[in-house]
Amino acid sequence: MSEITAAERAAMARARELALRGPRGVNPQVGAVILSPDGRTLAEGWHRGAGTAHAEVDALSQLASGGAAGATAVVTLEPCNHTGRTGPCAVALLDAGVARVVYGAADPGEASSNGAERLREGGVDVARTDEAEAEALIADWLFVQRTGRPRVTVKWAQSLDGRAAAADGTSQWITGPEARAHVHRERSAHDAIAVGTGTVLADDPRLTARIEGIDDAPQPVPVVFGERAIPADAALRSHPRGLRTAGHELERELADLAGDGIQTLYVEGGPTLASAFIRAGLADRFTIYLAPTLLGGPRTALDAIGVSTIDEQRRLAVTRLEQLGRDLLVEATTESEQ
Amino acid sequence: MSEITAAERAAMARARELALRGPRGVNPQVGAVILSPDGRTLAEGWHRGAGTAHAEVDALSQLASGGAAGATAVVTLEPCNHTGRTGPCAVALLDAGVARVVYGAADPGEASSNGAERLREGGVDVARTDEAEAEALIADWLFVQRTGRPRVTVKWAQSLDGRAAAADGTSQWITGPEARAHVHRERSAHDAIAVGTGTVLADDPRLTARIEGIDDAPQPVPVVFGERAIPADAALRSHPRGLRTAGHELERELADLAGDGIQTLYVEGGPTLASAFIRAGLADRFTIYLAPTLLGGPRTALDAIGVSTIDEQRRLAVTRLEQLGRDLLVEATTESEQ
Ligand SMILES: NC(=O)c1ccc[n+]([C@@H]2O[C@H](COP(=O)([O-])OP(=O)(O)OC[C@H]3O[C@@H](n4cnc5c(N)ncnc54)[C@H](OP(=O)(O)O)[C@@H]3O)[C@@H](O)[C@H]2O)c1
Ligand SMILES: NC(=O)c1ccc[n+]([C@@H]2O[C@H](COP(=O)([O-])OP(=O)(O)OC[C@H]3O[C@@H](n4cnc5c(N)ncnc54)[C@H](OP(=O)(O)O)[C@@H]3O)[C@@H](O)[C@H]2O)c1
Repeated sequence: MSEITAAERAAMARARELALRGPRGVNPQVGAVILSPDGRTLAEGWHRGAGTAHAEVDALSQLASGGAAGATAVVTLEPCNHTGRTGPCAVALLDAGVARVVYGAADPGEASSNGAERLREGGVDVARTDEAEAEALIADWLFVQRTGRPRVTVKWAQSLDGRAAAADGTSQWITGPEARAHVHRERSAHDAIAVGTGTVLADDPRLTARIEGIDDAPQPVPVVFGERAIPADAALRSHPRGLRTAGHELERELADLAGDGIQTLYVEGGPTLASAFIRAGLADRFTIYLAPTLLGGPRTALDAIGVSTIDEQRRLAVTRLEQLGRDLLVEATTESEQ
Repeated sequence: MSEITAAERAAMARARELALRGPRGVNPQVGAVILSPDGRTLAEGWHRGAGTAHAEVDALSQLASGGAAGATAVVTLEPCNHTGRTGPCAVALLDAGVARVVYGAADPGEASSNGAERLREGGVDVARTDEAEAEALIADWLFVQRTGRPRVTVKWAQSLDGRAAAADGTSQWITGPEARAHVHRERSAHDAIAVGTGTVLADDPRLTARIEGIDDAPQPVPVVFGERAIPADAALRSHPRGLRTAGHELERELADLAGDGIQTLYVEGGPTLASAFIRAGLADRFTIYLAPTLLGGPRTALDAIGVSTIDEQRRLAVTRLEQLGRDLLVEATTESEQ
């Protein structure tokens, strides 16, 4: 295995950019660049989603037959070694006569991994670089591969003393405009957004990401958990991504979401649903907005989360602490997530 | 009124130091320095508490008869104009033949104020300087004069979601050693410390200020609110300041405490007592320790505080935000206090 050249490193950075042109979904975002032996770019490719060509094959397809002979393929993810809807990329690269492959992240799939080994056995020089960046690019997808479910962020807004509303249920507005704007950016950064039927019936939320100055912010898929009917005139029914419903079995519902390419889920509440996710150990990250106010009374932002004695407390690791206008933002993960 | 000289300014700083030699109590801490016309220090004095000489009289008493003729008296607080257990200081200064008086804070007392006017009428040159520093020195005493009660800090420790304990009541330790050490420094910085009988019966606290490396930290007077009997063997009974009890009528109890020279009260809980102070509008400052953990369940750090609808929320102004080990410290005041 020879050293990584400057041209290869630049090609890898380019491949990461190309990867982002593809969609998030059941498959990872992958980019590829084919370099001539003297370091010129011969072709670029990226993966356009399940059922379409993998990135390296997409790039090869742009070259005339024999055009990749002796070339170097630079790919963000280890070429697969598995026949799915497309043939193994390792074989495609061997067939194309590629002399060297540089990749970033290792393929975690049981069926698809060992592409690097297969290439080596076929006489290709295989090297690895920019592993951390390549893994960061597909961190959520890797999480899904490891756990079989989306990564879950549970969000709530509360008074300093942990209340989501005053005794009579009124809560507009506990937090200020900066915190509310932050929520919209967070929505847009997730693949799907979950609320319980309680929130739909109480607030009739739109659940769109509305970000000032950005008209085409990515919109998460709204998912309503619960068995009660959603009113025919609910605002959610005109959500641009359509409306998805889910039952009470959170683990199974999450597996279904992952199966449909949802890598990250933003649980917006209310208290019942948020507590259910935490109780089930299905909350990975927390985004808590603390308003500088006291409310007291019965409307806690969380209810029971399965902690009966102090040894069972859910310790968090705070990852970010920031003042948002008058409010305080606390981001945290479960200690295991850290 | 002539300009403040450098010697007078230095004397004022010295007078503030002298003031702190006196005790906190029903009377303010006051210091005084007598300067010769050419700026040399002739005498120093301070107030040693109710029933003893006021600072300026204490200083004059060290001079032979006629020794203050033509001198300047520099005093942190406006000389009083009121005959209490001691005669009016304004008169004492006039009688001593002082030519000039420089003071810091104005006397807020209805009966005692106007000392400056009386001096002026007596032909003394009166000037004022370092007002803010002089007021800061006796801020708590001024608060008591204005409100008739001690300034109240309500403290509690909670999980991020506002719980003081797990469902079964266990809570050791939600917060870490840094937060607990901070509590001891806070105790020591207050004149008295309050808990309800519930906390005494549940925790048997000592309520002493134990600060590492400081053996003689000032100890607050412990006050137990409530009607239930305090066990004969309660740890509190061996508190160095003795034990004080109080009933449910908070306003009246606070007036009594102020009458006994308590300028600041640190309410340590539990939830019932803390909520009662907040509900009654008697909490001026808040010290909240947020532990990065979730507990859920019924044991909220506050219970009802009289907020039935969102318009009645108790808005706070955050004055300090700090990480204490793994915990978060939030200091705040009511908006009116700010
Ligand atoms: N402070 C905040 O950040 C925030 C955020 C959102 C909402 N809210 C407030 O929260 C209030 C609504 O609270 P909520 O607790 O009634 O609403 P919720 O959590 O949105 O909905 C509760 C419903 O979720 C369904 N559900 C699905 N899976 C579940 C599971 N595994 N365990 C338990 N429930 C499951 C159940 O619906 P079915 O009974 O239909 O089966 C349950 O009744 C509203 O007033 C809203 O304004 C506050
Ligand atoms: N997380 C924290 O920071 C913290 C701090 C302290 C304590 N705690 C925990 O809190 C628990 C005890 O809670 P608690 O709420 O029962 O105790 P508490 O607030 O210490 O005591 C409650 C008692 O205060 C008395 N009281 C006096 N004036 C009152 C008024 N105006 N309104 C209402 N009550 C008044 C009543 O006593 P009578 O019934 O005798 O008249 C009442 O039962 C313990 O488990 C302790 O560990 C937590």
